[in-house]
Amino acid sequence: MAIITLTTDLGYKDFYQAALKGSILNTLPSVNIIDITHEIEAFNISKAAFLLKNSFYYFPKYTVHLIGIDTVYSASNKYLAVKYRDHYFVGSDNGIFSLIFDENPQEIVELNILQSLKFLHFPLADIFVKAACHLASGGELKEIGDSTFEIEHRMNFNPVIEKDLIKGCVIFIDSFENVVTNVTKDLFTKVQNGRKFTLHFKRSEFITQLSWHYDEVPEGEKLCLFGISDHLEIAINKGKASGLLGLKANDMIRIEFH
Amino acid sequence: MAIITLTTDLGYKDFYQAALKGSILNTLPSVNIIDITHEIEAFNISKAAFLLKNSFYYFPKYTVHLIGIDTVYSASNKYLAVKYRDHYFVGSDNGIFSLIFDENPQEIVELNILQSLKFLHFPLADIFVKAACHLASGGELKEIGDSTFEIEHRMNFNPVIEKDLIKGCVIFIDSFENVVTNVTKDLFTKVQNGRKFTLHFKRSEFITQLSWHYDEVPEGEKLCLFGISDHLEIAINKGKASGLLGLKANDMIRIEFH
Amino acid sequence: MAIITLTTDLGYKDFYQAALKGSILNTLPSVNIIDITHEIEAFNISKAAFLLKNSFYYFPKYTVHLIGIDTVYSASNKYLAVKYRDHYFVGSDNGIFSLIFDENPQEIVELNILQSLKFLHFPLADIFVKAACHLASGGELKEIGDSTFEIEHRMNFNPVIEKDLIKGCVIFIDSFENVVTNVTKDLFTKVQNGRKFTLHFKRSEFITQLSWHYDEVPEGEKLCLFGISDHLEIAINKGKASGLLGLKANDMIRIEFH
Repeated sequence: MAIITLTTDLGYKDFYQAALKGSILNTLPSVNIIDITHEIEAFNISKAAFLLKNSFYYFPKYTVHLIGIDTVYSASNKYLAVKYRDHYFVGSDNGIFSLIFDENPQEIVELNILQSLKFLHFPLADIFVKAACHLASGGELKEIGDSTFEIEHRMNFNPVIEKDLIKGCVIFIDSFENVVTNVTKDLFTKVQNGRKFTLHFKRSEFITQLSWHYDEVPEGEKLCLFGISDHLEIAINKGKASGLLGLKANDMIRIEFH
Repeated sequence: MAIITLTTDLGYKDFYQAALKGSILNTLPSVNIIDITHEIEAFNISKAAFLLKNSFYYFPKYTVHLIGIDTVYSASNKYLAVKYRDHYFVGSDNGIFSLIFDENPQEIVELNILQSLKFLHFPLADIFVKAACHLASGGELKEIGDSTFEIEHRMNFNPVIEKDLIKGCVIFIDSFENVVTNVTKDLFTKVQNGRKFTLHFKRSEFITQLSWHYDEVPEGEKLCLFGISDHLEIAINKGKASGLLGLKANDMIRIEFH
Repeated sequence: MAIITLTTDLGYKDFYQAALKGSILNTLPSVNIIDITHEIEAFNISKAAFLLKNSFYYFPKYTVHLIGIDTVYSASNKYLAVKYRDHYFVGSDNGIFSLIFDENPQEIVELNILQSLKFLHFPLADIFVKAACHLASGGELKEIGDSTFEIEHRMNFNPVIEKDLIKGCVIFIDSFENVVTNVTKDLFTKVQNGRKFTLHFKRSEFITQLSWHYDEVPEGEKLCLFGISDHLEIAINKGKASGLLGLKANDMIRIEFH
């Protein structure tokens, strides 16, 4: 059974996500619809990109990922369908694709199928659904759009790297209150090059050991590790790191190597 | 694959919605269950009706819509199954049907199938599920109930219309904090009859233009438009209208035509 | 279609529950995934057990119930798969099984299938998914683990019973704010033995009648009954008992028989 995943800011309290699902099932009754989340804050493109970047590859190849952030129709808003690592993505050309992909996609088209006037205010339930269902049924990209190579680029705040130092920041607090930074395992390992390190954050907190598991330190103690998302994470064994350490999104961290 | 949608006040934190789904799958293993929402506030019939009225028609014909609001068994609580525009609805006869339908339904029956004593306190997971699965399997209404024409009527607060004036109110704040009123596009167009208008709300706020899109005004500016639900909506481009304008459910609005 | 249910503390705002579902669909594309809930508070084993104990039996036999609480890998954390009343359960051996089961399970194995290093930090999406999909496909327990009889035991606070008295406590507030106690219908009936009773709670509140339905008392009045979960429940007809009566989890109740 074909799969379409949904990543939107529609919430669960309105009828919007239900209308979207109804529209998909009306077009392709046999598809399996899976929510990544509908709880992205409105217009938070970075958050949506982070969630999708870290979950899409768990799904089978040829899954279609529908991205419903910032989809309101306007003359300047282009809609894209993209093939990347044998997965399909459909969304607005608002820079989100550049945040999800680490390398060039296999194919990009700008959608040229028409939207009906009836759902003018809800392109997600119309043109996006048409494109997603076409791809989920095994259709090709070129049948729904014009080939393009220009997509909007958006830069996340990347870590600043010096010889003995990485300056990064907090990008995400998960619901366990683990603190996820923008320092990836690849980057850390490359700069560390076998050396010892001290991770500094807040005024005077620091950690000097990399853990493999949350329970390598006593309950209530802080630690850092590379977690599910392959990003450096600051956590507390069985505790809520964000609240207890006072760390929130965009806070700076420093890693010194010596 | 047959579809059953769920609109309830059961929430996602208890086991109730899971028990409901289990019960459906136990009766009809091949059905596709889609949540409209489980986050209706307890006994909020108007809200449930608004959500369902604006989403049911996105689904394929012959979808069964299960309405789980105010379903507790009592001698005076009748349970209905209704066919309307080739969709099926199963719910309590508490007035909700009159809020969803704009015209007479095709067929109404009062359920006459028995509820087992085992699930006396949970009719949703018993008699409602039996009825919904019967209909989702292609069964007929008359096999599960007695034909009836009397259903409970409930009136929403409807706009007051004068020659040059519509007095309405806010019925719904969506999760983007767009402010949805009870003035429909049909009503507005009919009374406007080509004239200019001024929409008044709060003490001294007003809007004199109807927008087509949220981004027709600068970011942070207020606007009004007919949105996804075909109701007049007060919004702020990329902003949260309800909070910023101080508008909440049941607040009055006035539209003067000149 | 085989069914896998999910009971986790992963929430809906992160990508974790989506990654879990993707991983399941990657292993077994045709399975039907149903959320019991992802909103268990982190490490709240008793709550997860209560929800699952009261909902699993609504599902068809041979449903697989995946329990994603406290699953982090460590040398001391054993993973079990269990057959109980012809349902399958997969989870950590942290005592949760002893809280769900009223009698000895049909079969218990300790998982001996390997976890890949890639998902070291996310055993739920790896070894748990492998086990659940194996069972959902009709595979046997002995093919994925070694038979065992020793499982971790955890005691809930059980009611104290005297000749004319049951001392119990509140174990759960549902989202209608009904107050669920640890006194089951079986226990109550046995100790009551046909006598009258007075249920005492808070300083001076009491109830002397057992209701069958919420609406047996006037709106706004308190009552007690055996609800959906077969536990003694304190409620208010169309009202929020927990807030109005000031009752919360772990509060004591006393039932005197006379």
